[in-house]
Amino acid sequence: MNAGESLRRLRERKPLVHQITNYVVMNETANATLALGALPVMAHAREEVEEMAALAGALVINIGTLSPAWVEAMLAAGRAANAAGVPVVLDPVGAGATRYRTETAKRILDEVDVAVLRGNAGEVATLVGVDAEVRGVESIGAGADAAELARTAARQLGVVASVTGAVDHVSDGDAAAAIANGHPLLASVTGTGCMSTAVTACFAAVAGSPFDAAVEGLVAFGVAGEDAAAAAKGPGSFHVGLYDALAALDPRTLDERAKLA
Amino acid sequence: MNAGESLRRLRERKPLVHQITNYVVMNETANATLALGALPVMAHAREEVEEMAALAGALVINIGTLSPAWVEAMLAAGRAANAAGVPVVLDPVGAGATRYRTETAKRILDEVDVAVLRGNAGEVATLVGVDAEVRGVESIGAGADAAELARTAARQLGVVASVTGAVDHVSDGDAAAAIANGHPLLASVTGTGCMSTAVTACFAAVAGSPFDAAVEGLVAFGVAGEDAAAAAKGPGSFHVGLYDALAALDPRTLDERAKLA
Amino acid sequence: MNAGESLRRLRERKPLVHQITNYVVMNETANATLALGALPVMAHAREEVEEMAALAGALVINIGTLSPAWVEAMLAAGRAANAAGVPVVLDPVGAGATRYRTETAKRILDEVDVAVLRGNAGEVATLVGVDAEVRGVESIGAGADAAELARTAARQLGVVASVTGAVDHVSDGDAAAAIANGHPLLASVTGTGCMSTAVTACFAAVAGSPFDAAVEGLVAFGVAGEDAAAAAKGPGSFHVGLYDALAALDPRTLDERAKLA
Repeated sequence: MNAGESLRRLRERKPLVHQITNYVVMNETANATLALGALPVMAHAREEVEEMAALAGALVINIGTLSPAWVEAMLAAGRAANAAGVPVVLDPVGAGATRYRTETAKRILDEVDVAVLRGNAGEVATLVGVDAEVRGVESIGAGADAAELARTAARQLGVVASVTGAVDHVSDGDAAAAIANGHPLLASVTGTGCMSTAVTACFAAVAGSPFDAAVEGLVAFGVAGEDAAAAAKGPGSFHVGLYDALAALDPRTLDERAKLA
Repeated sequence: MNAGESLRRLRERKPLVHQITNYVVMNETANATLALGALPVMAHAREEVEEMAALAGALVINIGTLSPAWVEAMLAAGRAANAAGVPVVLDPVGAGATRYRTETAKRILDEVDVAVLRGNAGEVATLVGVDAEVRGVESIGAGADAAELARTAARQLGVVASVTGAVDHVSDGDAAAAIANGHPLLASVTGTGCMSTAVTACFAAVAGSPFDAAVEGLVAFGVAGEDAAAAAKGPGSFHVGLYDALAALDPRTLDERAKLA
Repeated sequence: MNAGESLRRLRERKPLVHQITNYVVMNETANATLALGALPVMAHAREEVEEMAALAGALVINIGTLSPAWVEAMLAAGRAANAAGVPVVLDPVGAGATRYRTETAKRILDEVDVAVLRGNAGEVATLVGVDAEVRGVESIGAGADAAELARTAARQLGVVASVTGAVDHVSDGDAAAAIANGHPLLASVTGTGCMSTAVTACFAAVAGSPFDAAVEGLVAFGVAGEDAAAAAKGPGSFHVGLYDALAALDPRTLDERAKLA
């Protein structure tokens, strides 16, 4: 892992990150992508997703406000990304909350080669058949230890599993990392999970491996969250400060600020 | 009415508030819901809305950017909420501006048991057949006194009518309340009406009655608007401050800050 | 050109600006419209766009997240606007990035009488058959000088061409203007191009000609960008300050602050 070096490379290359994501957070993940230093593009029409995904440095598939036409586009884009060697990052928003979300997330995992699965404990637990308590798109608690859950998900689903929470756990099935960066205010703004997925995809476009990308992305996003919290008066000013902090991330100090357990 | 007690209960129970709302304000109403202390979930696919609505503490139906597939989902979600005893709050955005909006709002009122109808004077007047001047989604003026309009709408439509403006008027057909909280800057940010609807739904999940929820929601939102305005330099900083202010609302002082006429 | 006088008129008349735009920036362009002093309305359903467009002072068509149903609505709204004498402003977001976007932009230019085409150099170059380098929705470089490109586009497409960049170039085929207002931070926030299109449409509802509207809109937006940058700590606080600055624009000093080349 070398988050600083990846961030330097990202700002130099400005990779295009194609995001098929939910209506609620499109502006937010696009701005997080830009603030970090990459170029976001949102495109969801069946007519263009394959062409766009193949041009990209990474593809985000986020099922936060899904419907049938979007699911078809996600699958087509995912396959096109796979064919072009573009890494795919999946955010299974709300898996476990409704059957439609659970089944769609599973279908994408079946039909697309997903490099990184980034979700909360309830979502990831649902996808590997572990009991979890989910309320809407929030994870209230999971039946398993999160580090164990990440390893199980990685092995069972053939992905790098990135399970975020107060402490984040990343596993590729063998290697594992725990990241304790971040701040409780992140939970008071909608879409911060989706932003961490977008940031993971930005790193996936430049990092040495999907595992490195997942860890580096969460370190960078967590450090930005800490910086934003320092000056925040509540969720509104924290949200604004998060973009300022992402843009101000310093590649020279990023790795020493990582809180790896 | 006991806004402080309801707010305390809301923050303790964190009810799930399912919102089928417009593209323009999804992020904003989700963040207002989170800042207040409840949990938002946006879901609009016919495939999942009934399941999601039945899980929720309240359902928002907002027609701000409607299209046929969304209208069908709104109706299905509304019926599922009714069957599960989940209160429904309707925001008839732009009723009166186009026939499609007026007819859709009427159809929802016909087919769904709406607990609270939250709109501006022009929208509500349109729905009860009173002359109104509407420009797009803004109410320019209504032919009737707003207090009278709220009472008429409540009786005619069988709802709690919550008519917002410089002074808000809530009526269940018998009881009535006028709320003078708020600030002119609220009119300079898009979606503040939609946010007041979402906040009303948050209170509907915990309040003693739909009438209480409507009044308490407008008091809470209006007080937050006053606090945000105190530090604002314009519509951008006011918008940010609104989330900080919603999160900082103090249940102990909320009722004494209510400006009820 | 008299940007101050147009702004004064705009705030007095509060024209309705109908925007069929992309999911990413809907909230942002609506808030920019409101902050400037006009009234935004977003409506995209085939069932209502013709009625809404005919009521408006100007229509924005922005293809940033297009799909077939939206394209049909854009064409119908554009024709209704033409029939009613309502000026149409087109933002061909991402033309050149995928065939679908390029073809859709060309189809709209064919079937709708577009008053102002507002795009970056890569997008506009694509539409007149000049080589351009596009990465997603960002223009990386265009094969032609931007002033020349604006003139060529204006003549070839029969529009006022408004080509934005570090220096903006507006041409109606004969007259030309170069506007050097603005700030590099504008490129760090998603949707600022789309906002400049919305602001152009606000001016189109009140200005003496489409050419004047294009120039005045870019002057106003650029001056607001300069004011917002003065107090910004990064892209997040710049974004917030942009709405404050649009609302604070002073009609008395606007023209003397224009940096026309």
